[in-house]
Amino acid sequence: MRFTRFAIGSTIGYGTVEDDGRIRAMTTTPFLPWQPTDEYFTPEQVRVLAPALPSKVVAIGLNYRAHAEETGRGLPEEPMIFIKPTTSVIGPGETIVMPPQSQRVDHEAELAVVMGRLARNVSEAEALEYVLGYTCANDVTARDLQLKDVQFTRAKGFDTFCPLGPHIVTDLDAGKLDLECRVRGEVRQHSNTSDLVFGVASLIAFVSSVMTLLPGDVILTGTPDGISPLADGDNVEVEIQNIGILSNPVRGSG
Amino acid sequence: MRFTRFAIGSTIGYGTVEDDGRIRAMTTTPFLPWQPTDEYFTPEQVRVLAPALPSKVVAIGLNYRAHAEETGRGLPEEPMIFIKPTTSVIGPGETIVMPPQSQRVDHEAELAVVMGRLARNVSEAEALEYVLGYTCANDVTARDLQLKDVQFTRAKGFDTFCPLGPHIVTDLDAGKLDLECRVRGEVRQHSNTSDLVFGVASLIAFVSSVMTLLPGDVILTGTPDGISPLADGDNVEVEIQNIGILSNPVRGSG
Repeated sequence: MRFTRFAIGSTIGYGTVEDDGRIRAMTTTPFLPWQPTDEYFTPEQVRVLAPALPSKVVAIGLNYRAHAEETGRGLPEEPMIFIKPTTSVIGPGETIVMPPQSQRVDHEAELAVVMGRLARNVSEAEALEYVLGYTCANDVTARDLQLKDVQFTRAKGFDTFCPLGPHIVTDLDAGKLDLECRVRGEVRQHSNTSDLVFGVASLIAFVSSVMTLLPGDVILTGTPDGISPLADGDNVEVEIQNIGILSNPVRGSG
Repeated sequence: MRFTRFAIGSTIGYGTVEDDGRIRAMTTTPFLPWQPTDEYFTPEQVRVLAPALPSKVVAIGLNYRAHAEETGRGLPEEPMIFIKPTTSVIGPGETIVMPPQSQRVDHEAELAVVMGRLARNVSEAEALEYVLGYTCANDVTARDLQLKDVQFTRAKGFDTFCPLGPHIVTDLDAGKLDLECRVRGEVRQHSNTSDLVFGVASLIAFVSSVMTLLPGDVILTGTPDGISPLADGDNVEVEIQNIGILSNPVRGSG
């Protein structure tokens, strides 16, 4: 199943994306008991929004083998977690704005896990039962500030630095999905989630042993090698197999 | 003025604390247009909750001169920011639970700023106009994990690691408040906010140049020297002049 959050004018709703591409509105949200309605919309009638409104976005550093090697830091023994503020979340088609404080802003294509149920101290064996589905994410990063600061929070926390979308897709095997990032149509990152150091179930077990995950919360699973800078006027696409394409224009601050 | 958030049974409300100590319920919340009602409660009738429900808690590292010296890292040139998850927030009297992953959990008494209005790229000169008021915070930290991890997120992100309260107090001069932390009645930290490296207005300008601050969002302004470990059965108090006492019991994970 494929969930979408959308706006028509100032009205916001959730729905499912049907096989013919139409959106079928639902009574509530995918995070509550819901029923389908008889209201359908064409993609042209709506504006697609970030598919979840997380209370927190927990991100993982250095979680692809090839990217860990690229940075020269070696493989981590445990997941390394940080938090992106929810004010950094934008939806498909919304503009990534490069802040004046940074001279180098990079894309980081990532598989995002969207939690469906409250999860606290969940075992790895049961972890996937707490997942609603998956979507594409771009963990946009001011690389110069990341290198300068001890903490990642500023470098990864600017408004617009967490594009999510286009939809939440359920019932995927998250362990073998092709993932690609393109800038102006040129492939910059290309990998497969089979290269993850810590898989989705392991990440949920680790994170939920520290902090309670709430319905709608998002875990970004890390980025593969191939990170590279963005420029004013670029368009950046994150495509994940069986999920779709998350596309965002880029604007300089000047 | 003094704002409180409280529960009576399963009903939650906001109110003002009157000069006689009674709570006067308000029509909405301090973050919206509100009116006082004619409903009064005695402190014994209610359970006092964390006074805000932040969308994010942004914390500042090494922001007291004496604490920066204590860690041996010297004074920072810019504020160093990190985020505590909102699931770490608890209220006065709620229990700080030490997680099994850590062998050393420390108190960190801090002045907390509660934002009253949306703030984005606010100048230092105008910053205080965006503040609703101030409260006490304890930036509880698993010191061993903080030293082990590159990022502070795990060490400072456990559930119950962000006590806030007891009330939000308006119209304070935040630049000259005595601040104290006591464990089992013994003074462990004692300082004054005049020792802050970056004051409240400077912090708001800095943080809001990175991420939009929303009404109810909280900035923890950093802790002075004197950090020390907590133990099962302790009671830890953060007292700030003109604000009050935030008191929390401590429980081991065993």
